Amino acid sequence: MASSDQHQSPETTDLRLLIFHRSPKYGNTFLPKLKTLYRVLDPLDESDPSLLPLSGSVRIMLCIGATPVTSDTLDKYPNLECIVGTSAGFDHFDLAECRRRGIRVTTAGDSFSDNVADFAVGLLIDVLRRVSAADRFVRAGSWPIKGKFPLGSKVGGKRVGIVGLGSIGSRISKRLEAFGCSIAYTSKRMKPNVPFRFHSNIHDLAINSDVLILCCSLTKETHHIVGKEVLTALGKEGIVINVGRGALVDEKELVQFLKRGEIGGAGLDVYENEPYVPKDLFVLDNAVLSPHIAASTPESFEALEELFTYNIQAFFSNKPLQAQIEYD
Amino acid sequence: MASSDQHQSPETTDLRLLIFHRSPKYGNTFLPKLKTLYRVLDPLDESDPSLLPLSGSVRIMLCIGATPVTSDTLDKYPNLECIVGTSAGFDHFDLAECRRRGIRVTTAGDSFSDNVADFAVGLLIDVLRRVSAADRFVRAGSWPIKGKFPLGSKVGGKRVGIVGLGSIGSRISKRLEAFGCSIAYTSKRMKPNVPFRFHSNIHDLAINSDVLILCCSLTKETHHIVGKEVLTALGKEGIVINVGRGALVDEKELVQFLKRGEIGGAGLDVYENEPYVPKDLFVLDNAVLSPHIAASTPESFEALEELFTYNIQAFFSNKPLQAQIEYD
Repeated sequence: MASSDQHQSPETTDLRLLIFHRSPKYGNTFLPKLKTLYRVLDPLDESDPSLLPLSGSVRIMLCIGATPVTSDTLDKYPNLECIVGTSAGFDHFDLAECRRRGIRVTTAGDSFSDNVADFAVGLLIDVLRRVSAADRFVRAGSWPIKGKFPLGSKVGGKRVGIVGLGSIGSRISKRLEAFGCSIAYTSKRMKPNVPFRFHSNIHDLAINSDVLILCCSLTKETHHIVGKEVLTALGKEGIVINVGRGALVDEKELVQFLKRGEIGGAGLDVYENEPYVPKDLFVLDNAVLSPHIAASTPESFEALEELFTYNIQAFFSNKPLQAQIEYD
Repeated sequence: MASSDQHQSPETTDLRLLIFHRSPKYGNTFLPKLKTLYRVLDPLDESDPSLLPLSGSVRIMLCIGATPVTSDTLDKYPNLECIVGTSAGFDHFDLAECRRRGIRVTTAGDSFSDNVADFAVGLLIDVLRRVSAADRFVRAGSWPIKGKFPLGSKVGGKRVGIVGLGSIGSRISKRLEAFGCSIAYTSKRMKPNVPFRFHSNIHDLAINSDVLILCCSLTKETHHIVGKEVLTALGKEGIVINVGRGALVDEKELVQFLKRGEIGGAGLDVYENEPYVPKDLFVLDNAVLSPHIAASTPESFEALEELFTYNIQAFFSNKPLQAQIEYD
């Protein structure tokens, strides 16, 4: 079906300017389709002479992944009104500056939530039941030689502390209840209509948990919330799962705790200095390591594309945006 | 507390004879405690001169793991009335012969069911989301060099076919419903009060499923139920999870299908010739391999010990046994 979007006059198209903002590490998967709908400015495309003249007029930006948006970035687009984000997190935005300039900002909303929750549970089962370690053991040909593989620990009955009971955390809790885990959480504030025990700080949660799952946003307040004290509170058998952001954890401390056996294990999808992972972790059997893939499946990218396409259209039609960040 | 069991007279103890039947690959973890309660005959202990004279009187056997009980085994103990098993499966028993001799046989019942269900789900998430493969990728230092890791596939929305909706299968279905999978099953007969679609044969189930999870008993009827035809029906993106017994699958065919990319992946905890795993699997990224550990955690062994201890006591007190196999 020929949509009116695809057959608008050049003048109209010119009015619908969009900045495609991304660091070079991200691909341009969405670009060809966007170009059929909008006059797209791509700062990475140096062959486009219209970038500079049009930068002053552009009102909306599509920000790919965790590409930083600083006050310097914003200075380049003085008429920006809206940033459509494609990441579940928002630590890459200078939100104070966006707020000051009256710029609305959206995120990936729930597009990734099921995937991240699935992956968090996968990491937890892997660490507890030693799935990846078992796979290494079999592939190394050790089974006929060594015989017994060291026992893992049962998932059911574990006390799981969820740090950030938002769209991801609540999905994790739903899954883990089906395994017979008991759930508690900490969050900015206590959630109404939630049957789980609330702890007002992560230290109390850690003391009362066998497992901590980090799935909150990275903000000034949550930077390094898991450090020496929380790891000590979690204890020798404790497990940390991080599907949030690397800097939620003091990574150096975590590595030391894992190496010395002062916590039981860790399942990590995110790191402080991606794509660099502390090499000390590579030889540890009590760690499961993945390269920031919890959110990523073809299904989640489809959901994401649907959401940001909606948001761009909504902006141009003066309709309400979805998954918009609320300024406190 | 001093129990009467531990302080009975020698005559009484002698009456409570128990055969501790195990192949040498199994440990004797439970033996010391059992010896405080019963006069235990251990055929692997050649230093015990009473084994032969007492074999004719023993009425009950504790069978460790999957140690075979053949008609030759039974000939050694002509007065055997009861075999207390410690395995969830029963393919290692010559059940026809047990039945003919009027010997009651019990299994591990539900002791392992939660663990095996957890592990099956862990294997499925691992295969779909490529957790072990991702862990290899990170440990090899490939992330900074290669950048992108190939996408996995979302768990939710998958059509999961459960082969054997018993105590393990029903627990798997409960867990996977929380992930948003749709469940169907095949089983000896349709189960009452089950909301899932029933298929009378595995071929129809495979045609209508993205994933097959094998968690049924190994019997003459289920030997190699997954072969060329079922794998073809499952298709190029299909996934096989086996937490039942290795011989449920025609392993040679499965390896060929995986190598040629004619099915999507496999998560295997059991094999036809354990502890030997086909070496061709060691280099495949679409397989997750574990050394028959799905059932094994300290928690499940505790539950098992409680069950078999109960069953031995029940036998000697003429009380009903738990988890007794019903002869058809």
